[in-house]
Amino acid sequence: MLDGTLKSLFLCPRSVVFVGIPRKSGPGALNPVDNLRNWGYEGDVAIVHPHVKEIAGMSVLSSLSELTAATDLAVVSTPRETVPGIIRECGLKSIRAVIVTNQGFAESDLRGKELQRDMITEAKNFGIRILGPNTLGVSNAFHLFNSSFMPLARQETPIGVVCQSGVFFVGAAQLLGGMGIGIDVGNACDVNIVDALEWLGTEERIRVVAVHAEQITDGSRFISVAEEIGRRIPIVALKTGRSLEGAKSAASHSGSLAADDRMIAAAFQKAGILRVLETQDQRDLVRAFTRLPEMRGPRVAIVTLTGAGGIILLDAMERHGLQPAVLSSAVTEGLRNLSPDWMPIANPMDIWPAVMKNGMQKAYGTALRDVLADPNVDGVICVALGLGHAEQQHLGAEQVIQELSAQFDKPVVVWLYGSQPEEAVYRLEGNGRALAVPSLERAVRVLAAMMRYAKWKNM
Amino acid sequence: MLDGTLKSLFLCPRSVVFVGIPRKSGPGALNPVDNLRNWGYEGDVAIVHPHVKEIAGMSVLSSLSELTAATDLAVVSTPRETVPGIIRECGLKSIRAVIVTNQGFAESDLRGKELQRDMITEAKNFGIRILGPNTLGVSNAFHLFNSSFMPLARQETPIGVVCQSGVFFVGAAQLLGGMGIGIDVGNACDVNIVDALEWLGTEERIRVVAVHAEQITDGSRFISVAEEIGRRIPIVALKTGRSLEGAKSAASHSGSLAADDRMIAAAFQKAGILRVLETQDQRDLVRAFTRLPEMRGPRVAIVTLTGAGGIILLDAMERHGLQPAVLSSAVTEGLRNLSPDWMPIANPMDIWPAVMKNGMQKAYGTALRDVLADPNVDGVICVALGLGHAEQQHLGAEQVIQELSAQFDKPVVVWLYGSQPEEAVYRLEGNGRALAVPSLERAVRVLAAMMRYAKWKNM
Repeated sequence: MLDGTLKSLFLCPRSVVFVGIPRKSGPGALNPVDNLRNWGYEGDVAIVHPHVKEIAGMSVLSSLSELTAATDLAVVSTPRETVPGIIRECGLKSIRAVIVTNQGFAESDLRGKELQRDMITEAKNFGIRILGPNTLGVSNAFHLFNSSFMPLARQETPIGVVCQSGVFFVGAAQLLGGMGIGIDVGNACDVNIVDALEWLGTEERIRVVAVHAEQITDGSRFISVAEEIGRRIPIVALKTGRSLEGAKSAASHSGSLAADDRMIAAAFQKAGILRVLETQDQRDLVRAFTRLPEMRGPRVAIVTLTGAGGIILLDAMERHGLQPAVLSSAVTEGLRNLSPDWMPIANPMDIWPAVMKNGMQKAYGTALRDVLADPNVDGVICVALGLGHAEQQHLGAEQVIQELSAQFDKPVVVWLYGSQPEEAVYRLEGNGRALAVPSLERAVRVLAAMMRYAKWKNM
Repeated sequence: MLDGTLKSLFLCPRSVVFVGIPRKSGPGALNPVDNLRNWGYEGDVAIVHPHVKEIAGMSVLSSLSELTAATDLAVVSTPRETVPGIIRECGLKSIRAVIVTNQGFAESDLRGKELQRDMITEAKNFGIRILGPNTLGVSNAFHLFNSSFMPLARQETPIGVVCQSGVFFVGAAQLLGGMGIGIDVGNACDVNIVDALEWLGTEERIRVVAVHAEQITDGSRFISVAEEIGRRIPIVALKTGRSLEGAKSAASHSGSLAADDRMIAAAFQKAGILRVLETQDQRDLVRAFTRLPEMRGPRVAIVTLTGAGGIILLDAMERHGLQPAVLSSAVTEGLRNLSPDWMPIANPMDIWPAVMKNGMQKAYGTALRDVLADPNVDGVICVALGLGHAEQQHLGAEQVIQELSAQFDKPVVVWLYGSQPEEAVYRLEGNGRALAVPSLERAVRVLAAMMRYAKWKNM
């Protein structure tokens, strides 16, 4: 049973108290109050520090006992020996949700393990739930709230994140293509990956969830929760600690012990969780699910300006279980009429000769419209140019790709090459449903994984 | 035997005649004369066109017979039926090097195959060598010369390119990280991949060669040439048409028939050619060889701000045959002195707690210097931050990484994460020997492949 109130306390707190933050504020201070201010958080903020009266221009309480207002969430970042006592103080103030950010607990040494146990004991006594320790906590761009001491970019994307490391918060752009709501469970001494997943599963604004897990406890609940959420929201998971060395290191990093990797693989498959082995694939897939319609089968049409690019795609498609669509003859007719007589028309559709004869817009538009309309095609990969402004006017295809991808209910993935592809990517993705990827092979991997998800979902 | 004169005619022509170029010039015209002008080519340029008197502000000859000056190179781009005749005219003018750019030959239909044969017959009669057809020709940033009708960026990088498609010219930035000298052999009706490789092998300014091959003919010469060049210049090859569908398509694209893929793999291995299966790996490796010293063994040290990142790296290292270095105790001592007591020091070296205590410069500098000095370490992977300017002042490590990587003869590969990594990448790579890569796993693949190359070279 999902505790909606608890979820709100962590993800949408109306009031927060920070216990133990840096005295300084500003760049390099790593003061979470700065971050809240930058994000424009509208709730109440209190600060507890035993030795100073003012931090970041705000008055400071010398201990939690001075707190007068009811408070939704405490963010604790004090020396480890003090933490169990502070949890107790939170309990006495009827705070039900606590984030413990510091390191030095089960992931470190014996004393750290002991302190983590003590912390949980205190929490249980008061009905407190703890997120952490060893975490940046939560980040909710929609609620203008984050508990992180590292500066984060705020972006209202439909991407939910459950992770065991702050690198997915700070590096959200590189690793996931953005983050709307994130929950870093850290050592997961109490709130764990399944809880966090359950919270995100009920968020209307989240359309895909990325999971980074070093350890999955509560396995059978994890499977049933994931399976249920997965019907509505695809889950893309990176389970690390797969190697022997990685597993040993995971045990020390988040205090976890990695389970048998093959068991994980089987469980993920049953639950419809898309497992990625590389961070890049997680990023591509997360971005794909925020943009693209369903990939209903393995049949891919390729529209390309380069024959070589088509061949590279075919090689990758074979590796990843996709097939070149056998195009209807009506489809190939359109391009044939635009191409020189000597040009063989097939899939991949190499449209360069047609571009030379008819210009980019007409050739690209004809080919792409025809393959999108073909019932033998499940998804399309486009290869197009990204040149300097003057040349792009004549040789760019982003507008026609954008328009056509919005008209058909099939995924369109694009690789752009040339001297200046960035601007074309921006235009292409700015408004519409096409996805740009940084390499040909990544286009193939995206469609292959989307197909596996649709297959599971429609089973 | 390398024909140095011939190589010069193609790569460093003192004079060039274009036969059949667009009447228009400027953006979208795809006029190669524009490109030459933009690059500042200093040789003589003549233009032949039967119907117009002036193109791009230059006077035009109505046929090759009007050419008076001795000319090194002809670039032919006329309707296919005319090409054998034009080759003959080139012969009558004692032109020894001809690039045929147009499509419509052996890659297209029976008539195209016939015309390609006729073209070769004419060329043989006159001792002409042909590059192409179906090619952008050559590009030599050092000589300010290219024969391409597509606009290209000029960049004096030590990267040589041999390819069978213009996508590697136009998309050099995406696919290879730049191109100093490129030779697109297209259908390779005469000058083939081995010839091109041989030419690049004697170029002092080239330190790595990227090969894109759809077909490798002249197999035994290829192996011996590659083996010899490879001692000085690493060769990174993408052989496409590996899949059944890809091979079929390769046959029509460049008119070639793909050989048994396993034979290719064995031959590449013997010749010390680094084979990549994905374009991204080719880019990373090409860039790596232009920057990094040799990777002498499998032992990698990791310096990281994130434990999770270290685990992801360990997982990838196991997949790619690298090992976590067992650090000397003297090495771990340095970081131990900077870290809290509870922090276990090992490899990966998670330096975040030391950063919190001592600041980024001191913690990163100590850890990185120590692992670079450790004889048990062959190469280093760094994980560092790329934040906004104000924060980066305090939390950036690019300067210390740059300085230390220049002091030691070991490869250092860096993954940067955060809200603004681009500027940090720029600073890091601007002056020094570290390489930045866009994902953790790509750092591992780079070092693994570099190790394989060093092993072959030092065998």
